[in-house]
Amino acid sequence: MNGPEDAAATLDTLQAVGETAALRRILPRLPAADLQLLGPGDDAAVVAAPDGRTVISTDLLVHGPDFRLAWSSPFDLGWKAAATNLADIAAMGAAPTALVVALAAPGETAVAFLEQLADGLREACAALAPGVGVVGGDLSASPTLTIAVTVFGDLGGGAAVRRSGARPGDVVAVAGPLGRAAAGLRLLFGSAVDGEGRPDPAALPALRERHPELIRAQLAPAPPIPSGVLAMQGGATAMIDISDGLLLDASRIAEASGVSLDLSSAALEPDVEAVRNGARELVAEATALVLTGGEDHSLLATFPPGELPDGFRRIGVVRNGVGVSVDGAEPPRIALGWDSFEGWNRERG
Amino acid sequence: MNGPEDAAATLDTLQAVGETAALRRILPRLPAADLQLLGPGDDAAVVAAPDGRTVISTDLLVHGPDFRLAWSSPFDLGWKAAATNLADIAAMGAAPTALVVALAAPGETAVAFLEQLADGLREACAALAPGVGVVGGDLSASPTLTIAVTVFGDLGGGAAVRRSGARPGDVVAVAGPLGRAAAGLRLLFGSAVDGEGRPDPAALPALRERHPELIRAQLAPAPPIPSGVLAMQGGATAMIDISDGLLLDASRIAEASGVSLDLSSAALEPDVEAVRNGARELVAEATALVLTGGEDHSLLATFPPGELPDGFRRIGVVRNGVGVSVDGAEPPRIALGWDSFEGWNRERG
Repeated sequence: MNGPEDAAATLDTLQAVGETAALRRILPRLPAADLQLLGPGDDAAVVAAPDGRTVISTDLLVHGPDFRLAWSSPFDLGWKAAATNLADIAAMGAAPTALVVALAAPGETAVAFLEQLADGLREACAALAPGVGVVGGDLSASPTLTIAVTVFGDLGGGAAVRRSGARPGDVVAVAGPLGRAAAGLRLLFGSAVDGEGRPDPAALPALRERHPELIRAQLAPAPPIPSGVLAMQGGATAMIDISDGLLLDASRIAEASGVSLDLSSAALEPDVEAVRNGARELVAEATALVLTGGEDHSLLATFPPGELPDGFRRIGVVRNGVGVSVDGAEPPRIALGWDSFEGWNRERG
Repeated sequence: MNGPEDAAATLDTLQAVGETAALRRILPRLPAADLQLLGPGDDAAVVAAPDGRTVISTDLLVHGPDFRLAWSSPFDLGWKAAATNLADIAAMGAAPTALVVALAAPGETAVAFLEQLADGLREACAALAPGVGVVGGDLSASPTLTIAVTVFGDLGGGAAVRRSGARPGDVVAVAGPLGRAAAGLRLLFGSAVDGEGRPDPAALPALRERHPELIRAQLAPAPPIPSGVLAMQGGATAMIDISDGLLLDASRIAEASGVSLDLSSAALEPDVEAVRNGARELVAEATALVLTGGEDHSLLATFPPGELPDGFRRIGVVRNGVGVSVDGAEPPRIALGWDSFEGWNRERG
């Protein structure tokens, strides 16, 4: 299937082929949802909501602040767009059911780019949340590549797990890795940039080979989606997906619940070790990356004392008070989290 | 409340105040949804889906291709983002329940701009679909102002009205105006541009005063949302919202249903007349605007012969064959519809 027609097809741009023909090539690559009742072809899709409630979250990925085309392949982008959104549903204790994806792209974007983005969406759904599909979307022209995903989930008769239910005496636990995605970003900014610090793809293949786990964690994270439902069934009192860093997201549970979360550095040591082993150049920063690095979209939850659901490991305890501590003391003063209007420097890309 | 602090507040930009503080000012202006079970403050919202199915549609508005800040006020933008999305739910015969809104904006955007955008969203929901609210969202940095709305609806036990159910002998009917939004756009491109044809706000106030209905139809359309449910209850066999023009959207029903839609020019005459009365300079184009002008988001539906639901007027009949005709003949050859990758010229704005 690699004849001359396919070679020509990879040069087709959105502007050259138009929206309708582009969609005809993209749509078949998107996954169908098990719960989809009506799909593309009408003004709206219809998805089953067996529980009688729908869990909903929406998220934008914008070229520049949220990703760099010098580093992320279109497949990575589609994967990450799905993975980060699925994690928001998991963090409520729900099972994801479907996505809608609205995409704005420059006219000179190759249709093949969007096909690969669709492939990434499909493969992420298949790997992380089988049965989830893309039930609708939109394709627009824009000078800035933008991916808007809205994701739906079903609670299966359970109660949504909020940020506000943690109680003193609860166990603090996490499912999924900590610090890996931030370590990957650190490596990219350290090695895959040009002399002026701008993202440069030249060093990427070598970097991917040297640090496969860390680079993949940043470009195509794999949050533990099924752990969300397990946490709900296991009695989780509060939960959040760690998108902005362990300390910051823990402080969100602490604030919403009116409690204090005390983390154990010993319990975090395996994650620190994993970052160190993944990249020797990050030895000095490994602890900071585990405490403040976001984007792994692992699940941070609190549980009543007792056995933890599969996939969760204990990293601390809930106490009276408000705030987050490590081994009972103020956490080290490291920059906390990320504000998209303060954190992005357009010059650096 | 117009003290010096408020004057300073209008100069605050997203970059200056940061995402968290901006959201603290914007969120209280957004409408709550009657069916919202869990709102902002967690990783996802929870909305009741009493029917056990959720109707879903998503849409992007991008600065440049979809709107021009020289013409649209932030209030208009918020209004239009809500109105166009609500119409997609109505076109399925469903009642809209909730929206999520993801917004990407340059750091130099004033927070007051986003407050007014929120006001437009709120007022459109209140006017067009009371009880609908914004249950979630996202705010990102982007060089291109982009509004991504996903909208939800409930079928109340009814069957979704698709594009594919029109049968020969059915009546073709429309609820809402035709050609007004396109006439408004024509006037804007005719009078509210500078010497090079670029959008220019200087002439806008006079234009709004001379042609209030047509300019409002373009900048802040008011589609007949409740007519969607009435059509479903009244036995509509097919329905679509007229976003891309009567002939093009009629051809979508024709193609999906495998039938022909024959429109009556006499039945369309009141709409042609209304455009003529709204702007004398459009006398020659009025018929073309009614036949091919989109963006009114009126509802085009087919019904079995008999009485039409409130708000619908008969404009044609469904016949054997495939395609769209006017008075039994090929429609006049006018440019059909809009492709966002072909139709937008970045130079002209």
